[in-house]
Amino acid sequence: MDFEEKTISSEVIYNGKVTKYVVEDVRLPNGKESKREIVRHAGASAVIAFTEDDKLILVKQYRKAIEQVSIEIPAGLKDNEDTDGMMTAKRELEEETGYRAKEWIFVTSFYSTPGFTDEFLEIYEASDLTIAEDPLPKDEDETIELLTLTYDEAWAEYEKGTLRDSKSVFALFYWKMLRLKAE
Amino acid sequence: MDFEEKTISSEVIYNGKVTKYVVEDVRLPNGKESKREIVRHAGASAVIAFTEDDKLILVKQYRKAIEQVSIEIPAGLKDNEDTDGMMTAKRELEEETGYRAKEWIFVTSFYSTPGFTDEFLEIYEASDLTIAEDPLPKDEDETIELLTLTYDEAWAEYEKGTLRDSKSVFALFYWKMLRLKAE
Repeated sequence: MDFEEKTISSEVIYNGKVTKYVVEDVRLPNGKESKREIVRHAGASAVIAFTEDDKLILVKQYRKAIEQVSIEIPAGLKDNEDTDGMMTAKRELEEETGYRAKEWIFVTSFYSTPGFTDEFLEIYEASDLTIAEDPLPKDEDETIELLTLTYDEAWAEYEKGTLRDSKSVFALFYWKMLRLKAE
Repeated sequence: MDFEEKTISSEVIYNGKVTKYVVEDVRLPNGKESKREIVRHAGASAVIAFTEDDKLILVKQYRKAIEQVSIEIPAGLKDNEDTDGMMTAKRELEEETGYRAKEWIFVTSFYSTPGFTDEFLEIYEASDLTIAEDPLPKDEDETIELLTLTYDEAWAEYEKGTLRDSKSVFALFYWKMLRLKAE
């Protein structure tokens, strides 16, 4: 079966700081033409960081796209597509939370929503945390609050709808799974 | 702590079929101005559908944004923001796979990537499947192949990188968790 959609033309509609919006005319496998709206993105890394007393490190920030304060696992953009995912995860944990971690494990990676964007996210688990004495400075236009929540507290934020983005919901179910395994 | 970013102005850059690209000038909590790139989206529903012999229903399709054939759980856009999520899930399962299900459970919901889009996804679990005699027709510009994979086969596609979008990776970890619970 032929699936490929061939590019007839590609137009950059807007070249932003975080995203580039592109509209493509494509030839479908059935021979017809269609348009595809595509959001180009450099990719990102996120961190599921557990403290020694089994709390999850989270950050609270305003997300303009959903007009809501959102509690999420620490994450940030790659400098460019070639940047190492774990390096980005380490940098973001330190920048956003002031923590460094000695133990790092790759957990998973996924395209956020490939129907319209190439954003690819890598998720790492970090433990054996220490507080950096001279942490990397935060990004200038980010207002971030650090939270460390127990399992029940984190699920309570989920129930309230304040912790509800894909990577952080994944983190909660992953945490649930770790606890099932430990039983 | 004040988190809110107030809208100074909002400009629709492109009004597409699936997405609307908007650029906003915002006032940050620290008083400075910044720009936010936002992709408006009607939201979607997805289905984790298990057959009687414990296989997962998946669909294979081309995703232009990542220039790759992608194996995903069935999903589709809401007609509009007010459409019921479970109704959308039922319609998409039937349209994309020809299956109907008698048992439906809400599993989770999340913003795909709230750093730049308001896309909200609801995920349902469906079981007790029957093949619809007169299924809803597929969308005209979708070329879709139906797959039913065992647990090991689905993880093999994950390892190959062909099953790697947020909702489907979530589905695999969710499946792993169901199996741990059943042990």
